[in-house]
Amino acid sequence: MIKIGILGYGNLGRGVEAAIKKNGDLELAAVYTRRAPESLVIKTEGVPVKSAAELELGKENIDVLIICGGSATDLPEMTPKYAALYNVIDSFDTHANIPVHFASVDAAAKAAGKVGIISCGWDPGMFSVNRLYGSAILPDGRDYTFWGKGVSQGHSDAVRRIDGVIDARQYTIPVPEALERVRNGENPELTTREKHTRECFVVAEDGADLARIEREIKEMPNYFADYDTTVHFITAEEMARDHSGLPHGGSVIYSGETSDGTKHVIEYSLNLDSNPEFTGSVIAAYARAAARLNAEGKTGAMTVFDIAPAYLSTHSADELRAHFL
Amino acid sequence: MIKIGILGYGNLGRGVEAAIKKNGDLELAAVYTRRAPESLVIKTEGVPVKSAAELELGKENIDVLIICGGSATDLPEMTPKYAALYNVIDSFDTHANIPVHFASVDAAAKAAGKVGIISCGWDPGMFSVNRLYGSAILPDGRDYTFWGKGVSQGHSDAVRRIDGVIDARQYTIPVPEALERVRNGENPELTTREKHTRECFVVAEDGADLARIEREIKEMPNYFADYDTTVHFITAEEMARDHSGLPHGGSVIYSGETSDGTKHVIEYSLNLDSNPEFTGSVIAAYARAAARLNAEGKTGAMTVFDIAPAYLSTHSADELRAHFL
Repeated sequence: MIKIGILGYGNLGRGVEAAIKKNGDLELAAVYTRRAPESLVIKTEGVPVKSAAELELGKENIDVLIICGGSATDLPEMTPKYAALYNVIDSFDTHANIPVHFASVDAAAKAAGKVGIISCGWDPGMFSVNRLYGSAILPDGRDYTFWGKGVSQGHSDAVRRIDGVIDARQYTIPVPEALERVRNGENPELTTREKHTRECFVVAEDGADLARIEREIKEMPNYFADYDTTVHFITAEEMARDHSGLPHGGSVIYSGETSDGTKHVIEYSLNLDSNPEFTGSVIAAYARAAARLNAEGKTGAMTVFDIAPAYLSTHSADELRAHFL
Repeated sequence: MIKIGILGYGNLGRGVEAAIKKNGDLELAAVYTRRAPESLVIKTEGVPVKSAAELELGKENIDVLIICGGSATDLPEMTPKYAALYNVIDSFDTHANIPVHFASVDAAAKAAGKVGIISCGWDPGMFSVNRLYGSAILPDGRDYTFWGKGVSQGHSDAVRRIDGVIDARQYTIPVPEALERVRNGENPELTTREKHTRECFVVAEDGADLARIEREIKEMPNYFADYDTTVHFITAEEMARDHSGLPHGGSVIYSGETSDGTKHVIEYSLNLDSNPEFTGSVIAAYARAAARLNAEGKTGAMTVFDIAPAYLSTHSADELRAHFL
């Protein structure tokens, strides 16, 4: 059994917990929290909730620590810190800072003889793997990534910060015509606006100026200004009834030629009822890989690019060749 | 530059040749043939065509030999033989015999200090990788593989062997309702007949008994008896005009749950204008991996399961993390 520790029990931590239940060779050893441990009730019976401070002695009986923190401030500090003590894995997704994060995790993990897998999940993660495979197979081509239809938690949070907004949910939606053109192998140039639309469901305070809220959403730089955005004002009851899930998904489409006019289109697409449970499931499979790679003597930081598919599977190499090849 | 030799210049050999042209770090060093070398004109200028016999001295200046032979009789003999002399790669696709083929290539390659990648292409190959990734991420789920719409060369050949048939082309077509149910996450039980239909275009001899030909096709065991098959008789001109390409494709769909009622669907799909050019492109990317792995000191037989994605790419690890993750 591979003993897993989860640090952080938000949406992603609970998604990892659900994934561990589906993997017979993975065992949840403990959940670690920066909150008061007694304030947390987890779904797995008989598993202790401990203070994150306990991790710092480096004596916890875990094979891999899955760090479920935010990319802005948590992971840049936590992942290298714990990579000096345990095999670790995170879902760091601030693309521009990946080189710096990789370097700091690599240094800590190498010095400690541990493995640290960063930026694991579906994007970055499985989508990245498919961008790489596509570009290697069809070098005379290009990739397109579409997200959705699904809830963007970052955009939902941005709407919630607007004065007069009680709650909000933002869906990212690929533009069907753009998807169609890419799937046809046209390799079009597409602007941000041509690729995705955004749809917001907002619960506003009684008497709030709805026109102002809508304008503030649509004009918000980076988040909405470059998109066609639709805003719907709904009640708290409608929000709870119709928008409580966190579905997501999307497609990586790679399209290229192998000779004049001979086109090929590769599409990897996901349709997910729960973004955190699927992300947690990808991370659980790579946690297995982290434990195995470290047992083989590998150390340092890695990404999904560096790990052969066989390391993710519970099946032996013989079984994989006989049944999956 | 990685120097590539191609052994066998049929559809697949020409597909590999096209792929090499698209990869700046790959160089076609020579084409080897069991026919008279002077009878072969290849598309790449300035590259020699040599007798396959020349390979047997083990002195050819190539980094990887791509063996483009048939799985029934060529590859079981050729791949281990040449793995004792060069890094090799093949597209062996007789699923039931993969374990035996792997073992014989492994023994030869290990003894010679070479790498031998077997069963490379899209199925087996990229489809296999996606079956593995899917099963590792969603262990409580199942995979479905659909082929087509595309030309099955084996089925086309089987129809051509019928008395009175001059030429034939067989298309394998997924049943839309089955695809739809799988994409919806229903995880249905599907019979062979429910998954695919077969459509044949046949040029018959003048005066041939068309009813008999059609009956012989539809009742042919293994190839057609378990499917709903449609047969169209066409002229040689129509065959040349409408059916000269070798398009193919298909989908691997993995569908599973991460908690009660929470479903996820992963789909990897290909839409290929030319089956041999795409297969050749996958093989070219893995030939790069073979050269690199051997340069690192790795030896023995491998499959797509054993090779980390980064080995396929011309980009450095830093570039991959910065731009593809």
